[in-house]
Amino acid sequence: MTHWSATTMPYGVVRSGGRAPRPATAVGDDVIDLAGLARDGLLDGALPDPTATLDRPDLDTFLAAGPDAWHGLRVRLLELTADPAAADRLAPHRWASSEVAPVLAWSVADYVDFYSSRDHASNVSRILRPDDPALPDAWDHLPIGYHGRAGTVVVSGTDVVRPTGLRRDLDSGEVVSAPTQHLDVEVELGWVVGVGSELGTTVPTSAFADHVVGAVVVNDWSARDLQAFEYRPLGPFLGKSFATSVSPWIVPLEALTDARVPPPTPPRPPAHHLAPVGDGYRIGFELEIAPHDGGPTVVARPDAAGLRWTPSQQLSHLTSNGASLRPGDLFASGTVSGPTRGERGSLLELTWGWTEDVVLAGGAVRRDGLADGDTVTIRAAAPGPDGGTVALGEVTGRVVAARR
Amino acid sequence: MTHWSATTMPYGVVRSGGRAPRPATAVGDDVIDLAGLARDGLLDGALPDPTATLDRPDLDTFLAAGPDAWHGLRVRLLELTADPAAADRLAPHRWASSEVAPVLAWSVADYVDFYSSRDHASNVSRILRPDDPALPDAWDHLPIGYHGRAGTVVVSGTDVVRPTGLRRDLDSGEVVSAPTQHLDVEVELGWVVGVGSELGTTVPTSAFADHVVGAVVVNDWSARDLQAFEYRPLGPFLGKSFATSVSPWIVPLEALTDARVPPPTPPRPPAHHLAPVGDGYRIGFELEIAPHDGGPTVVARPDAAGLRWTPSQQLSHLTSNGASLRPGDLFASGTVSGPTRGERGSLLELTWGWTEDVVLAGGAVRRDGLADGDTVTIRAAAPGPDGGTVALGEVTGRVVAARR
Repeated sequence: MTHWSATTMPYGVVRSGGRAPRPATAVGDDVIDLAGLARDGLLDGALPDPTATLDRPDLDTFLAAGPDAWHGLRVRLLELTADPAAADRLAPHRWASSEVAPVLAWSVADYVDFYSSRDHASNVSRILRPDDPALPDAWDHLPIGYHGRAGTVVVSGTDVVRPTGLRRDLDSGEVVSAPTQHLDVEVELGWVVGVGSELGTTVPTSAFADHVVGAVVVNDWSARDLQAFEYRPLGPFLGKSFATSVSPWIVPLEALTDARVPPPTPPRPPAHHLAPVGDGYRIGFELEIAPHDGGPTVVARPDAAGLRWTPSQQLSHLTSNGASLRPGDLFASGTVSGPTRGERGSLLELTWGWTEDVVLAGGAVRRDGLADGDTVTIRAAAPGPDGGTVALGEVTGRVVAARR
Repeated sequence: MTHWSATTMPYGVVRSGGRAPRPATAVGDDVIDLAGLARDGLLDGALPDPTATLDRPDLDTFLAAGPDAWHGLRVRLLELTADPAAADRLAPHRWASSEVAPVLAWSVADYVDFYSSRDHASNVSRILRPDDPALPDAWDHLPIGYHGRAGTVVVSGTDVVRPTGLRRDLDSGEVVSAPTQHLDVEVELGWVVGVGSELGTTVPTSAFADHVVGAVVVNDWSARDLQAFEYRPLGPFLGKSFATSVSPWIVPLEALTDARVPPPTPPRPPAHHLAPVGDGYRIGFELEIAPHDGGPTVVARPDAAGLRWTPSQQLSHLTSNGASLRPGDLFASGTVSGPTRGERGSLLELTWGWTEDVVLAGGAVRRDGLADGDTVTIRAAAPGPDGGTVALGEVTGRVVAARR
């Protein structure tokens, strides 16, 4: 369970008892009902029409309301929670987080997944395509990405059914239909778009904060054997589309101010639409696996600070061909990996293509992927104000057996 | 302009004058306002709650209402339009199609594009990857596909801005940012999902008609040079995502009964989830190009009857890993090409990699793609009842110059 700092003020949607889901924020170990605050007039003047914006089962209207509304709500919430005189008025809308269940906070419009970690991309090339160049031709020129399935983005806590699919059996050479043998995770940093853009135009890197509400933690579950069989020439499809899990709470961009870092020096100057490069983010991840019969182990600690492409560049690239944005678009970094073994953000890398042991529940084991019953949790945290820390929350999911 | 047979009864959404868009059907050269029919009680009993379902600015609620509602509306419309006694009651809701402008009829949830024409896939391999096998390893085992950008699916008539992007200049070897030099079209058959499915389950091929409302004509615009530079290893991204045009009217599956044909005999038995194979569809396309300075020429006439994978198989494959469907999902065939030169559904193929002439406006010309000012129109028609024809309408779009 995440303990939220007093200045993060994440946006989420929770269900409590039999009541309809409603927008909320989180402070410490508590959750605050934003629909209730709006109805009681506590958000008047903070953003236009607080009730129409927040007394709803999702954040869709709030996301589309834009940066002034996001900032206005944030400022009001910081004031209300810091003011002892407001405690009584807040109290009826304050619940222990154990009393509520988060749901998917917004309607995901399009989901784009990038491939922006140099260490991940080169690890994958070395493991899977040892005869190819260390990186694809275009990799250092642009943020390579692809569209994933928006309809199977699920909230943290959703069980992941082991997918079945076609793959070539390496022993017999035959194509077989079977549950995946190489179910994997990918540690990713996701960004949620609030304000759309017009078809035929490009969003400059400098306009990032005009469009992006905040960040989520993403687990881009992957079935490596299905992906390997299907991906030429059109890329990943069923190997990814069965589930992509996101953390329940969107951490506002404004809460990540102290996490901003210059991105690594690139080997070549950026193309026109990728300059200025914008901010990198020092966001540290923990990838934790709890096998069905054992306790949890953190198996990797990668950091987003090392990513080759900044989220500003990813957003600009996504629109550089004139593609429009819509409120609710989600884009993610691709697997975050670092240069050392302890910074590898996927099991494919951690086991170096299923050939090396990982330590789980106190013992070194050989794994060719996740087992049924394994629970995977990814947590993230960033530098915050005054030397403190801003939690980004966590995304968790348990693997359950294939259905047929 | 499409002339609609008396038995097609397509579903669309039109705007007339300053009024809000509303659902409609089309008969002959007329359009009938379904919201108006619902308000006047003419659809009572045909489907549950006709007003809530159809007095809206889109077809979303109707699509999700399911096969009984689709059938019920269809039967009622066939009765009303065939009954001379109903003519007076219909008259206030009947407009000449020249009086209305179609808009995008539904909210596209996820967009998946397949690659199901053997002739197209092998042509592309021979043109672009002559050293590779004629078809990707997986091609005859499963319908290869990928996710496209749902947010840039646009209705017929929308201008297409020439996209700018990075590509490797073949003369200098340098990577340059420039408007695409190889803007192309793809003739495709699209299917619209009305009824969703549960995460973790597979839709059997036999359940196609329980989920799919009907068909649209698709032009999957492609920037071949951008695509060639970016597509390894994650597939097409910006080379496709700038625009995908769809015809305004969804032709009901029930109107395509006489178009059903057995698909070509496959070279191997289908995998479990791809059997029974379901129906192919004899749907003939015309690809017409009108250059900015000349009249229109039909440059290709491919037919969907030759596709390797049926839409039932595509739908089942899409969900075979447990991925859920949502109302509004769109999936398309991939470029429809046939074995002869006159059946090639893209300019890349028609010019055999920009090396052969095409005949446009009466003269043979060498083209390396679409020029600014070119208008592309794709029409489709299928066998109908009593030896007649069912039009599927058309999708058109004009290329306009790059914006920077």
